[in-house]
Order: sequence, then structure tokens, then C-alpha cells
Amino acid sequence: MTAKKFAGIIPPLCTPFNDDFTVDTESLRRHIEFQLDAGVHGVFVLGSSSEVAFLPDAQRRETIETAVDQVAGRVPVLAGCIDMTTLRVAEHVKTAEEAGADAIVVTAPYYTRTHVAEIDRHFRLLHEKTALPIFAYDIPVAVHTKLDRELVLSLAADGVIAGLKDSSGDEAGFRFVLKERRERGLDALAVFTGSELLVDSALALGADGAVPGLGNVDPVGYVLIHDHVRSGNPHAARREQDRLLSLFTITDVAPPSRMGRGSAALGAFKAAMKMRGFIDNAVMAPPQLPLNGDELLRIKQKLAEAGLL
Amino acid sequence: MTAKKFAGIIPPLCTPFNDDFTVDTESLRRHIEFQLDAGVHGVFVLGSSSEVAFLPDAQRRETIETAVDQVAGRVPVLAGCIDMTTLRVAEHVKTAEEAGADAIVVTAPYYTRTHVAEIDRHFRLLHEKTALPIFAYDIPVAVHTKLDRELVLSLAADGVIAGLKDSSGDEAGFRFVLKERRERGLDALAVFTGSELLVDSALALGADGAVPGLGNVDPVGYVLIHDHVRSGNPHAARREQDRLLSLFTITDVAPPSRMGRGSAALGAFKAAMKMRGFIDNAVMAPPQLPLNGDELLRIKQKLAEAGLL
Amino acid sequence: MTAKKFAGIIPPLCTPFNDDFTVDTESLRRHIEFQLDAGVHGVFVLGSSSEVAFLPDAQRRETIETAVDQVAGRVPVLAGCIDMTTLRVAEHVKTAEEAGADAIVVTAPYYTRTHVAEIDRHFRLLHEKTALPIFAYDIPVAVHTKLDRELVLSLAADGVIAGLKDSSGDEAGFRFVLKERRERGLDALAVFTGSELLVDSALALGADGAVPGLGNVDPVGYVLIHDHVRSGNPHAARREQDRLLSLFTITDVAPPSRMGRGSAALGAFKAAMKMRGFIDNAVMAPPQLPLNGDELLRIKQKLAEAGLL
Amino acid sequence: MTAKKFAGIIPPLCTPFNDDFTVDTESLRRHIEFQLDAGVHGVFVLGSSSEVAFLPDAQRRETIETAVDQVAGRVPVLAGCIDMTTLRVAEHVKTAEEAGADAIVVTAPYYTRTHVAEIDRHFRLLHEKTALPIFAYDIPVAVHTKLDRELVLSLAADGVIAGLKDSSGDEAGFRFVLKERRERGLDALAVFTGSELLVDSALALGADGAVPGLGNVDPVGYVLIHDHVRSGNPHAARREQDRLLSLFTITDVAPPSRMGRGSAALGAFKAAMKMRGFIDNAVMAPPQLPLNGDELLRIKQKLAEAGLL
Repeated sequence: MTAKKFAGIIPPLCTPFNDDFTVDTESLRRHIEFQLDAGVHGVFVLGSSSEVAFLPDAQRRETIETAVDQVAGRVPVLAGCIDMTTLRVAEHVKTAEEAGADAIVVTAPYYTRTHVAEIDRHFRLLHEKTALPIFAYDIPVAVHTKLDRELVLSLAADGVIAGLKDSSGDEAGFRFVLKERRERGLDALAVFTGSELLVDSALALGADGAVPGLGNVDPVGYVLIHDHVRSGNPHAARREQDRLLSLFTITDVAPPSRMGRGSAALGAFKAAMKMRGFIDNAVMAPPQLPLNGDELLRIKQKLAEAGLL
Repeated sequence: MTAKKFAGIIPPLCTPFNDDFTVDTESLRRHIEFQLDAGVHGVFVLGSSSEVAFLPDAQRRETIETAVDQVAGRVPVLAGCIDMTTLRVAEHVKTAEEAGADAIVVTAPYYTRTHVAEIDRHFRLLHEKTALPIFAYDIPVAVHTKLDRELVLSLAADGVIAGLKDSSGDEAGFRFVLKERRERGLDALAVFTGSELLVDSALALGADGAVPGLGNVDPVGYVLIHDHVRSGNPHAARREQDRLLSLFTITDVAPPSRMGRGSAALGAFKAAMKMRGFIDNAVMAPPQLPLNGDELLRIKQKLAEAGLL
Repeated sequence: MTAKKFAGIIPPLCTPFNDDFTVDTESLRRHIEFQLDAGVHGVFVLGSSSEVAFLPDAQRRETIETAVDQVAGRVPVLAGCIDMTTLRVAEHVKTAEEAGADAIVVTAPYYTRTHVAEIDRHFRLLHEKTALPIFAYDIPVAVHTKLDRELVLSLAADGVIAGLKDSSGDEAGFRFVLKERRERGLDALAVFTGSELLVDSALALGADGAVPGLGNVDPVGYVLIHDHVRSGNPHAARREQDRLLSLFTITDVAPPSRMGRGSAALGAFKAAMKMRGFIDNAVMAPPQLPLNGDELLRIKQKLAEAGLL
Repeated sequence: MTAKKFAGIIPPLCTPFNDDFTVDTESLRRHIEFQLDAGVHGVFVLGSSSEVAFLPDAQRRETIETAVDQVAGRVPVLAGCIDMTTLRVAEHVKTAEEAGADAIVVTAPYYTRTHVAEIDRHFRLLHEKTALPIFAYDIPVAVHTKLDRELVLSLAADGVIAGLKDSSGDEAGFRFVLKERRERGLDALAVFTGSELLVDSALALGADGAVPGLGNVDPVGYVLIHDHVRSGNPHAARREQDRLLSLFTITDVAPPSRMGRGSAALGAFKAAMKMRGFIDNAVMAPPQLPLNGDELLRIKQKLAEAGLL
């Protein structure tokens, strides 16, 4: 299992900003070092947790370049190429290639009302344009389309995709993919859960790894889960996962009546990262709203309860 | 009413492509002339019907520049600035300014899980960055959020938005906005329906105009509806609208089992535009699928039935 | 048009309760008299506004019997037969027959994940079981399925359904049905809008009538709209409709953070009916929550502004 | 764990019909014996898999009575009391009491647009009316509302509900409930997964049991999973669960273009039950459509592959 290039804990790095929403590259570099020190097995930049939907193209490019430079080959760097349709995604792919990413991560088309045959064509056209391994990113909460499991398996069988990052919340479908991968001999397909709440079960079921947003705050916890599962200690893994379930409630301190669930979660991650000294500035890109003082205090308390402060 | 800068029929122009998906500017210019000959009161480029979600930034810029140059001030040119969040939209706004658009059209944030307070902030921040009039584009089928009617009215009251293009399908909400506009004295707000199927009723209820995708195929029909309503002839307007309801079934000839509803509609528009000689090439941007021969034949028949061939 | 049995304003009567949730038949009779005095052209019992989803079968039966007895043939009585699937609906149909209803109103199946072919079969099986005219009730907000327009037209062509009550909010689809009814010669199909906010436009487009929930509070207003449209006075109709749009905001005084949108609307209707003396008791069936004092006060103010107190 | 009254595999029994849609009580009794022989730890009648949404009240009563009589106390009998709102559910609760059920199963209100405060009130009012243990049934695919996890925990803390049957597909939420149950000392709450595809993981995480629809076809498989997990053999449990994932594809042999997903799944269960000799007649209640010959053949092949024929 460990021989696989893409395996283990690969956090989707939050993107630290300066006050003018340029990338705070110094914080990004420091954050990456905290992650590598914790033992993560890769990093994923420009995913949903990176505020990729908020970043202009220049900041996207700088983010990949900084990450690739800082990581310096110690682990793989995955780069999200998140845009609405094929030609626009293709431009991000070119950037990722030029910046030296090891793999790219691509969603189904969005904004447009799409179809499984068009999603299939989307991935195949992108594969024709790049030699980089492609991860299919299944994230219906953002793109409002669920990737069909047979589509995923057929793209894998044809070598179009090298991996799946499943943030769909459909655990039965995830399990079906793992089973079919085994039965159809699609070992080359790397399968990752995008949930921060089910990492131990996903790994126990045969997933190659996890891309946990909460790993920005507590990478050590996720590496521990990984190591416990791999060394055959499911109970320790579960205890650790349960601790992280409690920690995850930082994403709910800002109520739905006040701001979007995206801002509430990313704001909590960034606030906690700042409290832990990983980054200097917890500002989020507009139009997201900032957490208030009470909310920050509750996050601090939860970090303390989790032994992280 | 006619003293308003933005009023009447403003079709959302389809973007004709060459085979390599560069913009076929010659066809675009010809198409614009057909539209102006038909008497349209403005043109809207880079909306959903323009395949804006499929166009790289270079093609977006070329589209606005071509339209502005060809229109040459005869009618206003509105330009869609369609992207996920504020900073990315702001870059498209800059392009629209440089290319000489008369107004910009902006949706709620998408991909991210947003909130009414964040949508409010989104429009206000963009208004701070540009002197161009902003149309709020209410299109939940694409962005998966409905613009709150009180938000629209308060943005209008504060001079943040100059117009509303309502493609939400919520006719009761649309009517509520029209009534409140009158009662609150928000006459500066231009209100357009984005439906091609309810233009006569929208105008009769006090809307300033319509942005009908089907106007790409039959602009004369929509100008007729407009003129009939304005001259107090609702029955003639309704007959014309009913004829266009029948014509609109070209968007259903490709079945949902075969392709997305976006491709089916845009493919039908472009095929009909080519059959009518407006453009040279009906190709759609990837990953959309093309209509097949049978489907094209049925479109031809429907055009003939509508007296358009 | 007036020769049609089912035409005009047919309010969906709220069901007044005693404190023990038995039907307050005296209030129901009085409410019906207020409605008939106002000139309504029919009454609809056991629709969504009647809290049909909250009524046990005994109360459902008593409601129809009371209405039929009180109306005494002066106008038609339509009865909702609202349940999940065919066999259960069939039992309500039998009750409606025994109680003397003039027509029944039936939705698509719900709770189960259904299909257009099954909805088709549902209506056909029910038609085989009863000689009563069947109205198809298109209410996706409750049953989470939209009735397909071609299905509606084919059921009408085959004499399976006698009417359509469209509460779907899809005005373009509604208009398509009206156009096709005319073109296919399906004059026997009675088409009603279920919206209280678009009655004038629906009638102007050729709809036979409306089933406005707000008619419980202000039946005179809806009869006026009807009469203005029928006598060729669209502007007067629109003024009246606009007044009722303002009145409809009583359904929003209880905020979404406090209770469901059903309770907020039905609670407002019942409170207003009580304030106007139509019924004695505004209690709603459990588990709905009651409006509070502030909310009731705001309803009172809005009634006063509308000239109804 | 085994001391709990409600624990283990409790299949939601399909309801066999005669051709006139009366309950085929003889088949039901035989089916129950097959289930008990397989070692199930309880039976659940009148759930979604029982076609409860299709059964008139008389058939519902007969189903509980038959099950209670046949089971004769050997295992607990849970009865669904599935209806739209409190007063209607209360009538089913009375039936369940009279028929001798050991517990009842209740969903959130549906058809109406509800609210968490109203769902709370719904369960509390029902608890006041009955001494039977109440299971909250979280099934958004049917009722279009997800039970809030804090609501579930507070209803458990107050002794209102005795159990949770989670068919929501939200595995992270399910896990959160299990963790909080432990941390808040809510041991009395019996937690069951309603998924047939994740039984091993659910049990491993601490769930008390499972209510697998596919258990109608292969109860032995689910009892094996249960026994393997309880005896500390997760790999054997997983192998068995994977075999059942393959078997579950019988629910997809009828395509979405032809019938609803409900009919496809229930039709497959009943066809397989008939092929295995558990019941005499695979007919489904209207308006569901029957499987065709090809589809039945494919189910037969899948049963054979699974070693069940």
C-alpha cells in the first residue's frame, strides 16, 4: 500500500492571505512545514478549503508555485483546477503543469446543467491535454452533481483518472467503488475520502487516504488515525477520530442565521490555524464574513479542550 | 418608459465559435446586425446563453470588444461578469470596463455555500470598484441560490444595482419586486424578465424589458410582443408569445437521457441560428454534446412551422 | 366560459377547529356563508390550506359533509383526497362520494419515490374507481414531484382528469398547458391557478379560475379580480391583485427561524379569519406552533391597512 | 450490549399481497419463520420496505396483528406509524398498541413544510399519548426533512424516544450521534442504521443494530455480519457485507427511465423473496409498476451468483 505514490493523509491546505488578499506566502510556507513535521503524506492546494473559488488566477498560480517550492519534492503536491467547464479548466491545468504540481484535481462541470455523458467527455478531453495524473473530485455540495460510480470506474479502467477524492457524503457509494476497484483489478486508482469525520472507517475499508480539511488545524491527529489503522489498531484510531469529531464543531460556532456554512467552516479553520501559530492572518476572501469575538473565543476554548493550545 | 437607458428587448447573444473554439467574430458581427435590424433595444453578451461558463477569459474579452465595436453605440451593450466570487468577478468587471460595455451583469456567488448577508456584501464591494451600472442576475438554476427580494430592493434603494434580470422562474416574487419598486419609488431600477415564455405578461405587469434566449432565433417575434404591449394590444402580444412558446420546444428535441438541458437548449439555438443564416457554425464548447441528424431535422421542421425558414 | 361547471374563484377553505381539534362545524358553516356572500364560485375543502395533512379521517369526512350540507348546491364543492398512494387515496374518494362532493382533487404519489409512468397509472386507476370529476393537484412543495405537462394533457385528452389545480409556481409550464389545451381542443379541461399572487394574469391568459388560499381572508378581493378581468378591465384587476400581494405578507410575520412556513401561513390566515369574525378559534392542528402576540398584532395592522377591519 | 431489548438485525419486512392487495397473511407468516430461522433479532413491519405508504389502514392493522401473532414473543415486533402529522400518526399508534406491537417507529411530519421546533413537538405529543417505546425514523428521501442530531439527542435525554433508525445516508451525523450518546450517557437510546450497505461499519462504530431492507432476501447474510462483528472478526464481516453490496444491485435492474426507484427496489426484493420461496406472490401495490421478464431473469442470475438459489 505504501508503495503507492498517492496515499495517506493529504490535507487540503487553507490559503493564508495578506490584508489585500494577496497570498501570504510566508505563512503558507510555515503552514506547510507544520504539516510536513506532523507527517502528512502529501498536500493539496487549491481545493475548496483553499478558498479556490475566491482566488483570482494570479493568486492561484502563486499558491501552487509556493507550495511546490516549499515542499521541494518531500511529498506530492496536488493542485485543484477548479472551474466551470473544459476550456476554462484546461487553462488551470496548464498553470499547474508549469508550476510543477504532481497531480491535478478536477470536478464535474458546474453553473451549466450537465449530464453524465458530458462529465465523461470533460474528463477524457482533459486527460488528452495533460500527462499529469487526474483526480476526480466528487463534491456535489459545490457543483450540485454527484459523480456516477460507474463513470468513475470506467474512467479509471481507461486510465483517464488516477484517483478519486470523494467529498460526496455517499458512504455506500464510496464503499461500492472500493469493492469494485478490488473486483475489477483497478488497483491503479487511488481512492481518498474528503470527509474529516470518517477517516478511520474509510481507511479500514481500503481507501488509500484522506483529504481532511480539519487537518489544517490538527494534522497530527489525522496522521495518528492513519498510523493506527495501518498498524491494526482500530480502537485507537476510533478514539482519535472521535476526538476530531468534537474538534470539528468549531465549524458550527458561527450560526447559519449569520453567515454561509462555507465562511463558518473556513473562518474557523483559519482562526484556529492562527491561534496555533501556523499562519499570521485569519482574513478570508470576500464576500465571506468574519467570525466575531464571541465565536473566536469559543474556538479557542475548543482548541484548548482538544489539547491544541 | 422609453426614456430609460435600459428597456425593451435585449437578447442574450449566443457566442458563435470557430472549430477551435475561438470566437467566430465575423458571425458574431453578422448576428448582431440581424438583431439590430429586427429592432432589439440592446444586446447582452456573456450571459448563460452565450456559453459564458465555457469561455476562457481571452474569448470573453474578445466577445465584448467585438460586440461593442459592431454595435457602435446604436444600443447599449450589457456584459456578463460571471464567476464564483468577488475577486474573480472584479477581474471580469475590469475587462468589461476596458472593452467598453455599458453595464455589467452579476450573479450571486456560487460553488461556495453562501448567505444573503454575503450576497449583499458581494454586490456592494463590486459597486465600490466600478462606475458601470450593475444588473443583478437572479438565476438559481445555475448558481443554486435565489436572490432574496428584499435584498434586491435594498440594493436598488442604495444605488448599488441599476437593474435586475430575473431568470428565477418565481413570477410571484418578480411581481412583488415590481409592486414594491412602484410603492417605494425605486424607479431607477430597471427590471427585466429572463424568461422567453412570459415576456408579454412581464411587460404588461410593468417590467422594463426582457432578455429572451430564444430571441437569438427570432428577434422579430420578441420585438413584436414588445411593440404590441406598448401600444396596448395585449391579444396580439399573446398570440405572438404563444407562437414563441411553440418554437421554444426546439430546446427539447434532444432528450434528457442523451444530454444536459443546457446543451439541448444552446445546441438548438445555435442550430436554428445557423439554419437562418445568422452564424456559420453551430459548434458548442466542450464538454457539451452535439445534436444529431434527427434532432436537427426536427428543429428545421419547427422553424418552418414557425415561418422562419 | 361561465357555462363551465368549474370556473371562477374557488377558495381552499381553512378548517376551523375546536380546542380538541374536532371540526368547529358552526364556524365552518359561517365561514362558508361569508364566502358565498362574497360571490365565490365554488369551495374547495381538504386542500393544503385546510390542514388536510393534519386531519384524521373522521374530521375529513365531517368537513366534506358539513360543507356539502351548508353549500346546499349553490356552488360546486371540491374535496381533496390527499394521501400517499392509490389504495389510500381510493378510500378518501369513497368518502368524498358518500359525502356528496362534486369533484375530487388528487396529487401525485408522495413519500415513495415515484415516476411519471406511475403517476399516470395512479390517476387512471382512480378514474376507473369513481365517476366524480378528478382535478390533478400539482403541488411540488408538498409532494416533491412536479406533474409533467404532457402527462396532464394526455390525461385530459383521455378524459381521466377534468381539471388541473396548478400550485407548482411554474408559470411558463402553466401557460404551455393553456396554449396546448386550446390547440388540441381539450376544452373540457378546467385549468385553475393555485397561486394567490398571480390570479389576474392567470385569468387573462385563459385560466378558468383560481384557488387562492388568501381568499379565506379576503374573498371579495378575489371575486373583484375575477370580475374585472372578465369585464375587460385589466388595470383594475391588477390594482386589486397588488393590494392582495401586500396583504399576503401576513404569511411572513412569523419568521423562518421560529416555525415552518406552513404554520406561518395557515396561522396567519386563521388569525385573520378570526379577527374578521369568520371563525371563532384560530387554533392549528399539532404539531404546528401558534403565532405570538406581536405577530398577531402585526397581522391586525396589515388587515387594517387593507381596509379589512 | 445483548441485554438491550432492541439490538441486532431487525429486517423491515416486505408485505406480501394477494392479487386484490389484501395482505397474504400466509406468506407473511412463512416469511417471518424464514427470518426467525435465520436468527434475526426482531422484525419491523410497516416501514418503507413494507410498502406502508401504499397500505390502507385495514391492511396495516392486519399486518401488525399477523406479525405479532406469528412471532409470538420470540423477538420484538416494531411497527411503523407512518403518516403526515401528529393526529394522524396518533391513530396508527393506537392501532399498534391494540395489535400488540413492542415499539413504534415515527418519522418527521411531511407533506407540510415543517420546522425543527415542530418536529420536536410532534415526538413529544406522541410520547404523551403512548407508553410504547418510540423510534425516530430519519428518512429524508421520503419525508424531505433530515432529523437534526441535537434534536435526536435531546429527545433521547428526555426519554421521549427510545431509539433511532437512521436511513438518512449521513454517516458523519450518525457517527456524531453515537459519540455523543456515549459522552452524554444516553445509553438507553438504541441506535440502528437503516442502510443495508454499511451494516458492518455501523456495528463496529457502536450501533446497536441494523434494519436492512435486503435482509428480506438474505437474512442469514446480515446475521452473519452481526455475529462476525460481535465476535471481533471485522474482515469476515466485511467480506459478507461486500457480498451483499453485490446482491443489492438487484435493486437497479429496472432502469430509472422505466419506473421509480421505490418500485425498482421493492419489486426486486419481492421477486427475490418469491424465487427463494419465502412468499407466493411478488405483486406490488399500485401505482407501482411490475418488473418485466428480462429484469426478473437478471435478478435470478444475481441470486444464483450470491448462492441463494
